[in-house]
Amino acid sequence: VTTELPERQLRDLAGARTNVTVATAESCTGGNVASRIVSIDGSSAYFLGGIVAYANDVKHRLLGVPEDILANPGAVSEETAIAMAEGARRAIGTTFAISTTGIAGPGGGTARKPVGLVYIGLSGPNGTFAEEHVFPGNRGDIIHAATQRALDLLVQAINTSS
Amino acid sequence: VTTELPERQLRDLAGARTNVTVATAESCTGGNVASRIVSIDGSSAYFLGGIVAYANDVKHRLLGVPEDILANPGAVSEETAIAMAEGARRAIGTTFAISTTGIAGPGGGTARKPVGLVYIGLSGPNGTFAEEHVFPGNRGDIIHAATQRALDLLVQAINTSS
Repeated sequence: VTTELPERQLRDLAGARTNVTVATAESCTGGNVASRIVSIDGSSAYFLGGIVAYANDVKHRLLGVPEDILANPGAVSEETAIAMAEGARRAIGTTFAISTTGIAGPGGGTARKPVGLVYIGLSGPNGTFAEEHVFPGNRGDIIHAATQRALDLLVQAINTSS
Repeated sequence: VTTELPERQLRDLAGARTNVTVATAESCTGGNVASRIVSIDGSSAYFLGGIVAYANDVKHRLLGVPEDILANPGAVSEETAIAMAEGARRAIGTTFAISTTGIAGPGGGTARKPVGLVYIGLSGPNGTFAEEHVFPGNRGDIIHAATQRALDLLVQAINTSS
């Protein structure tokens, strides 16, 4: 059992491999995932950059999320999270990319998409997938939980890749 | 004298004007400026997105920083900060953009460009400029100080624009 911060695990994993580079594509976390990665000295060896795509237009133009996906099922969806992660991996040119899109609140929630609903996407050499979460708490809690899970997912994906 | 956080001042200023939108272009702060903006409820009304350009190649391809500027005077320079801010304003499509590029350390410093040297760029309707700072402290201190100054500069620029 390790209690080490995931951004430090990322440094230990990615810093030891020359073929691992990382990008971020963040909506609801708004740069928190990138800033946690960059808080670690030496992160420039594997973190190349990220896109904070808060507006849908930015998700489409800079990350290539199709407009029909943004219309339905919408920006907060598994499909958007997958397209964001793939778009960041392509645009930044990395082996791995992590994405977040969700409703941090306190406004913006609906019956079908409540506050706290977050999709986290991961794209790597073995493909792309997304997870659905509903995180409890206030805006800060939700952003923190989504950031933490995104970093954990990225570490897991690198750990299990060849 | 106000002690209100600059990200709250930004909300009060930009939220009240329909013609103010904001983008970020971050190198050394690595997403911290964007994440401070997004920590405020309602920021989606004026914050459209940002680019974390950690690698020079990302500064060139996504923000349009000329390769000859990145070669000399280099990525940590007034010229790069200005090109990053203009590039973010253009790529994201906002009225204002703020940029950061510097040496957060502990490695990477030289006699001419010491750890703590940070350039902060601001682009808006009245033009583009950059400030030079040398912030004291460790990596976290430098990232925090640069983030705080970037947010203050953005608030000032919006405050003094028509």
